[in-house]
Amino acid sequence: MEEEQMLTKEQILDMLDAGQYKELKEELGNMYPVDIAETLEDFEQKPLVMVFRLLAKEEAAETFTYMNSDMREVLIGALTDSELEEVMEEMYLDDTVDVLEEMPANVVDRLLMVTDEETRAQINQLLQYPEDSAGSIMNVEYIALRKEMTVEESILKIRQVGLNRETIYTCYVTEKRKLIGRVDVKELLTTGESRTIEEIMDTNVLYAHTTDDQEDVAMMINKYGLIALPIVDHEMCMVGIVTVDDAMLVMQEETTEDISIMAGMSPSEETYFGTSVVEHVKSRLPWLLFLMLSATVTQMIMNSYESALVVMPQLAGFIPMLTGTGGNCGSQSSTLVIRGLSVGEIEFRDLFKVIFKEVRVAAVVSVILAVVNGIRIIVMGQGDALIALSIGGTMICTVLIAKVVGCTLPMLASKIGLDPAIMATPLISTLVDISTVTVYFMIVSHVFHL
Amino acid sequence: MEEEQMLTKEQILDMLDAGQYKELKEELGNMYPVDIAETLEDFEQKPLVMVFRLLAKEEAAETFTYMNSDMREVLIGALTDSELEEVMEEMYLDDTVDVLEEMPANVVDRLLMVTDEETRAQINQLLQYPEDSAGSIMNVEYIALRKEMTVEESILKIRQVGLNRETIYTCYVTEKRKLIGRVDVKELLTTGESRTIEEIMDTNVLYAHTTDDQEDVAMMINKYGLIALPIVDHEMCMVGIVTVDDAMLVMQEETTEDISIMAGMSPSEETYFGTSVVEHVKSRLPWLLFLMLSATVTQMIMNSYESALVVMPQLAGFIPMLTGTGGNCGSQSSTLVIRGLSVGEIEFRDLFKVIFKEVRVAAVVSVILAVVNGIRIIVMGQGDALIALSIGGTMICTVLIAKVVGCTLPMLASKIGLDPAIMATPLISTLVDISTVTVYFMIVSHVFHL
Repeated sequence: MEEEQMLTKEQILDMLDAGQYKELKEELGNMYPVDIAETLEDFEQKPLVMVFRLLAKEEAAETFTYMNSDMREVLIGALTDSELEEVMEEMYLDDTVDVLEEMPANVVDRLLMVTDEETRAQINQLLQYPEDSAGSIMNVEYIALRKEMTVEESILKIRQVGLNRETIYTCYVTEKRKLIGRVDVKELLTTGESRTIEEIMDTNVLYAHTTDDQEDVAMMINKYGLIALPIVDHEMCMVGIVTVDDAMLVMQEETTEDISIMAGMSPSEETYFGTSVVEHVKSRLPWLLFLMLSATVTQMIMNSYESALVVMPQLAGFIPMLTGTGGNCGSQSSTLVIRGLSVGEIEFRDLFKVIFKEVRVAAVVSVILAVVNGIRIIVMGQGDALIALSIGGTMICTVLIAKVVGCTLPMLASKIGLDPAIMATPLISTLVDISTVTVYFMIVSHVFHL
Repeated sequence: MEEEQMLTKEQILDMLDAGQYKELKEELGNMYPVDIAETLEDFEQKPLVMVFRLLAKEEAAETFTYMNSDMREVLIGALTDSELEEVMEEMYLDDTVDVLEEMPANVVDRLLMVTDEETRAQINQLLQYPEDSAGSIMNVEYIALRKEMTVEESILKIRQVGLNRETIYTCYVTEKRKLIGRVDVKELLTTGESRTIEEIMDTNVLYAHTTDDQEDVAMMINKYGLIALPIVDHEMCMVGIVTVDDAMLVMQEETTEDISIMAGMSPSEETYFGTSVVEHVKSRLPWLLFLMLSATVTQMIMNSYESALVVMPQLAGFIPMLTGTGGNCGSQSSTLVIRGLSVGEIEFRDLFKVIFKEVRVAAVVSVILAVVNGIRIIVMGQGDALIALSIGGTMICTVLIAKVVGCTLPMLASKIGLDPAIMATPLISTLVDISTVTVYFMIVSHVFHL
């Protein structure tokens, strides 16, 4: 990968100190805005503003969209109204909305003040879509064609307005604002210039509604390999597009969210370092508390077998191994099912197919684990054949229960509209702990007449 | 989302039975190939082949690329050589290579036999790139321009060859096959026709090497919001492109792989249902066995405190809660760090920053958990103040150890070139179990003179 053109933080600061503004300006022009934003991350206010002022208008706006909210606030506080106006003018509308959503009210007011009226109206419109909806991530700038236009006229239109559009590669055909067709620029370029749009347009257009979940939109763009997906309102009027680069970001965000939930945390939109200690505690503590208190059930079951432990204290030593194996088995099943549900490969109607598969896997796995563990117990002298058999029996029951619980709960969650990711390792292990300890003491108290 | 145009499995079978081939052909023409492949998934051989023969040439080839390997084998076995030849001709080369990689040798031979010589040479070339490398997923069909060409000539070239290119939206400028620049079709369309490519091309081109990891390529496409990334060989000669739709699939695949490893399974490229019970067992058993045997350490520690359990058997009941909480805390930290590493937000040089953050989070979390649990113990009459204090002390140590181990191990793994995802919940919990039980018995045996 080519990285030779990148300035480091130190190089930039040195050039500022040496007053080499012209050279720095030139070097910055060769860098990608996303890299500039990354390099400026730990800058103090003064050098940050100085570097930002060296950027070309368009580059500055794009760099601004890649910055974190702290950097943006610093800049907004330091730039003049006319400088801000330029940034706002150059940014794509969907990026502007992203910026505004994270800013305190007084900053939003200042930004909106330097924006022209038409844009302001569009921004206010976009700010009203629910968070995580297609409307909230869409771009309102796209190329709309009419079906009577010829290919030549269409190309001319793209030439005239194309510069201000985030993507021009798919054009949409509208009639009284309603979406009626789609034309790829590829087709415009490779067909006769005198043909009309109506002749070449594809009327079988995929689209989504403004209120659809952003994750569904991203999945659709992925599934059909699209460059952009048109977004319509409830009257089928076209209002914007979601582009593939935004879809990729959404997919990455949503995956991070899923993974956080699966580890028993409330998801955060901020980065790891961007989240304060207090916020980290807030996102992690609720599940830890809930699961710790749920473990009381396991404890109560064990306490009711206290007398058994007095007679055979070595029985306690097997418990972490049994609950650990149960937890691991359950988390394997729940993880596979949660991921399968999230990429759309598993659906609720597959429930019995999944259970059937998990039961067969559990049967094989549990017998092997029980046999290996039995041999280990006897070889290490941790117990006789009867103990090995009891532990083996518990192991088989535990693995079976863990796999069935692990695959069933995420599917039930998705059925009743909960996020299946909740039913991941932490909750599954706690539930499996309860069943493991119950089965274990039922078996050993029966076998050893405790 | 628009789904009204989709035929169900039953509708297709009914139309086949009723001999409504013409109507079926027309309806299929309105469906997307990816949906057709999905609908045909559970079809018997005979109707599968019948439907496939009704598809238009181009549609058939695309549908074929979306099918699973079982369906492809059935079709290859049933189609005539000339039918296969048509499918092979219409498929994009990167898809052909994907298909061939999954087929048994005799099928590959038959498919290569019906392919023309030039394509066969290209296929053989592509088959040689290592799995998961940029070379193995790249497309060799792209638009190459020369710097002397005018915009008008370039558009003419796109018109002539564009139909056979998977993507034409970014054109690459080469000189003696070396990559020297990039031009977006957007620029071609919006600039004067008589300008030369050299005047408008961007010479600061991002690219990757054929041997680069496909995940890095996908991350680069995502980071810079590209439609395609050019791939060069070790002599900087351009050999292909990776397009954004392939990058999205790679990201999804790699995430599924990470999530599987994080749950203690070896990743599989097949779908959940596409994996047999035996393969599921093979991917899950190794970690379960390893972790089960590792739990022996915990057991040995507990056994050495057997006499303590005879005197105070109620001490055993606290163990699942303590190990469970420790495991959950460790898995929260390791999950955050693994995800941070995989999206490039955390790097090894951040190690001490991460540990410092985790220690502070652990301090707050552990004290709250210890207090809540202490109150619970006394309220539920499970022990006196001394027990509550001992459990609280163990809790604080456990949470601290778990968080530090949880964040450190994935970072060390990445440093020595292992996949950080290995250091996830299952392994972390097993390690934390050992430390929890050790700390617990050290504290209680000291406090209660056991």
